[in-house]
Amino acid sequence: MSWLETEIREQPAALARLLERQGGRPELAEPFRRDDVQYVLIASRGSSSNAARYAQYLLGRANRVPVMFATPSLYTIYGQPPRLDGAVVLGISQSGASPDVGAVLAEARRQGRPTIALTNDPGSPLAAEADLVLPLEAGEERAVAATKTYVNSLGAVALLFAAIGDDVVARDELARMPELLERQIELSFESAPPLEGYADAVGATVVARGVNYGTGFEIALKIRELSGLVVEAYSPADLMHGPIAAIRPGWPVIVVAPTGPAYESVAELLPALAEREARIVAVSDVPALLERVYTPLPLVPGVPEWLSPLTAVVPGQVTAMRIALLRGLDVDNPAGLRKITLTT
Amino acid sequence: MSWLETEIREQPAALARLLERQGGRPELAEPFRRDDVQYVLIASRGSSSNAARYAQYLLGRANRVPVMFATPSLYTIYGQPPRLDGAVVLGISQSGASPDVGAVLAEARRQGRPTIALTNDPGSPLAAEADLVLPLEAGEERAVAATKTYVNSLGAVALLFAAIGDDVVARDELARMPELLERQIELSFESAPPLEGYADAVGATVVARGVNYGTGFEIALKIRELSGLVVEAYSPADLMHGPIAAIRPGWPVIVVAPTGPAYESVAELLPALAEREARIVAVSDVPALLERVYTPLPLVPGVPEWLSPLTAVVPGQVTAMRIALLRGLDVDNPAGLRKITLTT
Repeated sequence: MSWLETEIREQPAALARLLERQGGRPELAEPFRRDDVQYVLIASRGSSSNAARYAQYLLGRANRVPVMFATPSLYTIYGQPPRLDGAVVLGISQSGASPDVGAVLAEARRQGRPTIALTNDPGSPLAAEADLVLPLEAGEERAVAATKTYVNSLGAVALLFAAIGDDVVARDELARMPELLERQIELSFESAPPLEGYADAVGATVVARGVNYGTGFEIALKIRELSGLVVEAYSPADLMHGPIAAIRPGWPVIVVAPTGPAYESVAELLPALAEREARIVAVSDVPALLERVYTPLPLVPGVPEWLSPLTAVVPGQVTAMRIALLRGLDVDNPAGLRKITLTT
Repeated sequence: MSWLETEIREQPAALARLLERQGGRPELAEPFRRDDVQYVLIASRGSSSNAARYAQYLLGRANRVPVMFATPSLYTIYGQPPRLDGAVVLGISQSGASPDVGAVLAEARRQGRPTIALTNDPGSPLAAEADLVLPLEAGEERAVAATKTYVNSLGAVALLFAAIGDDVVARDELARMPELLERQIELSFESAPPLEGYADAVGATVVARGVNYGTGFEIALKIRELSGLVVEAYSPADLMHGPIAAIRPGWPVIVVAPTGPAYESVAELLPALAEREARIVAVSDVPALLERVYTPLPLVPGVPEWLSPLTAVVPGQVTAMRIALLRGLDVDNPAGLRKITLTT
């Protein structure tokens, strides 16, 4: 078995470990509760930026304050970092090694702002810049493409959400996720649809919104990294403002549409996609949707919407792996990629 | 002549009109100077989101405060808008009609925060929600793809920058831009390179950083809207964190690399792109770079870096139009797109 498949299957155990070891840390909420906090600033790259998109919705709802992404070049290239009065600064990096992410936390600390690092390496440079470290507890990840570190980044964000709200219901719902994730992984492997129809695909477009906006980007990145296809992600609204022009007959469009407030917004796009004769792939727990699309990727039912990104990414991971295997590629070491990328 | 070409050629006159009519409004700086301002929040869609990326760098540098993008779904779908204490809220919309952009400004106003609208229609719903309106003064735009409204959105952001800093040098530099834009348009039409080699292209990737990060997205959107190719944009750092996997031999990569602090960061990517045998298109005023790439798209020299997005987009507009014409498409009415898109 490839490292990639091993690590996809390890995800429930990795998530359970995170919740067990890091679930009882009320002090993680303290920076967010400071009276002077008016927004959250997140620095990240790659898969961690997709976890950051989840944080943008979840922490925004927990704190009712806006969550923004840092523009590292203002810190590193232009040497004009902003004043960070009012900020809580969060760095998310599996390796904790990328200098640009570290530079944002170092500047925040210089300005006396509270800093938190979410990283799988508590001995990393990023962790050293942070007041609080939330270790991802994913264990060593050997495949270049992040899977269990990604899901545990989401789990860590969900832990922050539950801690900030001191929310017993949220904690209980989160505690059930390792089991639901286990069932999702079984379902995604067992129900794997034929993919031969995509053998000559050049690329695909993923559409998602709200709490799963980052799921769309992560599924796109996973297929792209593993198979070299040109895969991109959009919200339905952004796609309608011009980029839909590139959706041609036969082009695969993956809609991420779990039950929840964002469902309608994604489903509304289907007529416009049908008019362009796109081939629709649906990641959903809604039977009526799954029945009418070209390729159904079912989700286990009963996952609360705020936690649905932890399971909704799984069909994307499994599909990305299967497309790469169909194309005869090395799923553990995609051509030209490295596990740790250092950018400034 | 198509409306598109007419409007590309009208850009210098449209920019001059904006500067003349709206250049003497020091009150535009007032919301940004309030003692309680800790960040800027921008709501936008489509081309206006690319102007927003310019604002993220420019207003970030002018105010030394972070600039973030709104997540409209928290306002419209989830009904959980954030507390906006500390925010100045900017809406950018050519039509001023998109409900999601309007919803963010309406909420800001409800919370008593200062609001500014940049729109080409001062009678639009967006303008009605704003304390201050900065009309884009682009005149009627008939082609579906935005050109002069985009450049004037950049011009309006540059006006805000000069007003906030009360910066005489910046004002003088901005006043020279209609002439430099005129020369850029002439240069881009006169020096138009052969594009027949791209006749069978499926897509392209645009790479840009810093003040021109939004230029990369706008060039991608323009080619995509007009020709239906799958064109995407990345910063060099984001591309290196995985997405470079999709760059295959012969794939066109457009690097936006004007002289300035971000130049090296983009140029550093060239060896990795050469290793993947990408065909490089360079938008640059650096002769040594233009000489070594497959397709040079020259920029006029002498444009200050902070204003370079106003000229750097032009070769992208002209190239997008030429590719669409080569493919026999209607450049004024790309298939399936409308001038005004209403999303929530």
